[in-house]
Amino acid sequence: MKVRVTVMLKEGVLDPQGKAIGHALHTLGFPGVNDVRVGKIIDLDVDGTDRAAVQKQAEDMARDLLANLVIEDFTVEVLG
Amino acid sequence: MKVRVTVMLKEGVLDPQGKAIGHALHTLGFPGVNDVRVGKIIDLDVDGTDRAAVQKQAEDMARDLLANLVIEDFTVEVLG
Repeated sequence: MKVRVTVMLKEGVLDPQGKAIGHALHTLGFPGVNDVRVGKIIDLDVDGTDRAAVQKQAEDMARDLLANLVIEDFTVEVLG
Repeated sequence: MKVRVTVMLKEGVLDPQGKAIGHALHTLGFPGVNDVRVGKIIDLDVDGTDRAAVQKQAEDMARDLLANLVIEDFTVEVLG
């Protein structure tokens, strides 16, 4: 099954990458950019046909490896 | 307005980061992982109230800076 794990920095955590992109966009002539936040997408192709089991497994993967739970939140979406 | 730009590697482009994550997941005891693809999410907060104009501006940002069009595809979603 295909699963999408989305990992974003928690609210309030400084995002230097986002700040850099924001500055670069201003420099390139895009004035109206107020805030930029950068995150990760991890698309997984995993064995299994039971959506709930696949969802649970992907959440475990996110907790164990894909997300740094101190500063990041994650969501898991079983795409089918 | 809030806009989400999603940047993924094009089909067929090798994803060494994804391969590394796949190996790590196997090592951590997740055997059923067949393929892993990693991408970026850039959440923008931009001035403007006209959805079409904001969409167009974000697409320009993606072409100019956020995506490497040689190896990446992007999608733009105006969240509101």
